[in-house]
Amino acid sequence: MLKGHQTWVFDTKPVIRASAAVGGPFEAKGALADDFDILHEDVWLGQDSFEKAEKKMLEQACEKAIDKAGMKKEDVQFFLSGDLMNQIISSSFAARTLGRPYLGLFGACSSSMEGLALAALIVNSKAAENALAAASSHNVAAEKQFRYPTEYGSQKPPTAQWTVTGAGAALVSQKGEGPRVTSATIGRVIDMGLSDPFNMGAAMAPAAVDTIQTHLRDLNRDPNYYDLIATGDLGSIGHEITGDLLDKHGIKIPPEIFTDCGILIYKKEQPVLAGGSGCGCSATVAYGHFLNRMRKGELKRLLIVATGALMSPISYQQKETIPCIAHAVSIEM
Amino acid sequence: MLKGHQTWVFDTKPVIRASAAVGGPFEAKGALADDFDILHEDVWLGQDSFEKAEKKMLEQACEKAIDKAGMKKEDVQFFLSGDLMNQIISSSFAARTLGRPYLGLFGACSSSMEGLALAALIVNSKAAENALAAASSHNVAAEKQFRYPTEYGSQKPPTAQWTVTGAGAALVSQKGEGPRVTSATIGRVIDMGLSDPFNMGAAMAPAAVDTIQTHLRDLNRDPNYYDLIATGDLGSIGHEITGDLLDKHGIKIPPEIFTDCGILIYKKEQPVLAGGSGCGCSATVAYGHFLNRMRKGELKRLLIVATGALMSPISYQQKETIPCIAHAVSIEM
Repeated sequence: MLKGHQTWVFDTKPVIRASAAVGGPFEAKGALADDFDILHEDVWLGQDSFEKAEKKMLEQACEKAIDKAGMKKEDVQFFLSGDLMNQIISSSFAARTLGRPYLGLFGACSSSMEGLALAALIVNSKAAENALAAASSHNVAAEKQFRYPTEYGSQKPPTAQWTVTGAGAALVSQKGEGPRVTSATIGRVIDMGLSDPFNMGAAMAPAAVDTIQTHLRDLNRDPNYYDLIATGDLGSIGHEITGDLLDKHGIKIPPEIFTDCGILIYKKEQPVLAGGSGCGCSATVAYGHFLNRMRKGELKRLLIVATGALMSPISYQQKETIPCIAHAVSIEM
Repeated sequence: MLKGHQTWVFDTKPVIRASAAVGGPFEAKGALADDFDILHEDVWLGQDSFEKAEKKMLEQACEKAIDKAGMKKEDVQFFLSGDLMNQIISSSFAARTLGRPYLGLFGACSSSMEGLALAALIVNSKAAENALAAASSHNVAAEKQFRYPTEYGSQKPPTAQWTVTGAGAALVSQKGEGPRVTSATIGRVIDMGLSDPFNMGAAMAPAAVDTIQTHLRDLNRDPNYYDLIATGDLGSIGHEITGDLLDKHGIKIPPEIFTDCGILIYKKEQPVLAGGSGCGCSATVAYGHFLNRMRKGELKRLLIVATGALMSPISYQQKETIPCIAHAVSIEM
């Protein structure tokens, strides 16, 4: 089960029976709009707060994934979810609606793959037949909590990223057909002393490098084993730094198989600065776009390396640097 | 592995090789002072913020548990931790210090047993030889974040509870001697429509009842199987309600084997209103007091039912009710 230092190999290869992605109006204009199951024109989703809109989106992603699997809520034995809101209220309130045994997670934007790794572990261990992993973020709810009221229209540097309004869910099962979760590398916290919350990509890059390096070493694997290696939400700046750092460590990932969810999700003309971010970024791109590509036969072996910046507004105000983490999950047909 | 609907039975019975509890000055005057490994006279722990004090306390609990097990940091393969701070910064910053692969959790005050359940699952699945589960809370850091600056001296109703300044850690291993984790019941979110953040005990009681009932039913077990069944931090009000509700459901737990960590931790003369609360409450009472009693031979079979109120100040301001959860873990000699 444990290979090397920090990689789990799932011998039963739990299957992702179904997955779903829900997005907002900005995502509807994005590059991957076709891969969302539900797209909302209204960033409020008809709710009276952005927090409730995020919860609603997460609930929809869960319900859609369960529905696509031809299952009922009751068939989900455990629900694992995380998000960026204080006390992960989006996840906990969605768990209330879902009514299933619930494990709340927090790994900032890495919560998506933390959830998928643990769901696969649970299913692989026969601790469940079916487990649902999900994650979400909402642009305005996140801006409000972490930065400034959007009405201020405060300017941001080009290194800043745009929090994705989106939720993704994956139903992981012992039985069924679909892409299979084959391994997961749980990351360590890496902090290189960066403290700029408007340059998370640079802060998270070393964590991505550490996890990719560990994953390949633990499994004695060459990067070319994969058809695609995608980091979570490093954006254009962080992705470039990650490539450079990997190069320095002697790991050459060919550019055509190395990408980032935060780069892929929006069109070049959208004003997202360095790209997308948030738990909803890797969750929607992985559970929508990538899994669709796998189901179409375009990808056979995928490694998703979800990155997370584990700071808070308080830790920033207290002049702490940004602890970062990355969890990698391999999915294969 | 999965028994009934939501209970994991750990066939290898992972062992808690060592555990540690760290507390603050108020806990040093409490009823269980002798069971803490480290007690601080200074609520700041020499740090320049309460948040940093909490992180320090959590680090000390982890280091102490590792040390008591006769191990080194490097022997810990995975670190699982949760706390009440926004974005669980206490856990994430402690994870940075520890440098081990990290899974961040959030289940409010139930985070302690969520961590122990998952650590036991990981060890039982051979996904690790050793995993460290921890949780913490800090009275002043929590008051500051969730309620009012303590300097206001705002009054509280008698149903309110006192957040424990404490951190607990348990080192769970495949090998070694000590109390063993035999099963875990993962709770569902239960919300009976209560919304008063100064009466968390009442809000959480139904979640405790649901998990206790499910645990006993899943394992076809009588409450008298246990020498002690302890809820996490319901306090005196919530504990009484839980007893009444269990009675109504036909589950009779003899009063002499039914207790609550929030009732036990402080002395009657301490001004804690309905009792202790916070992630550090069940973590320190379980990993300090209860495990010490097991090691002394006073208890053979223990069920800890850690409860959590999964709300946030924002959800409260938006007039949401309080979603609650409870996770139960059985520990046996």
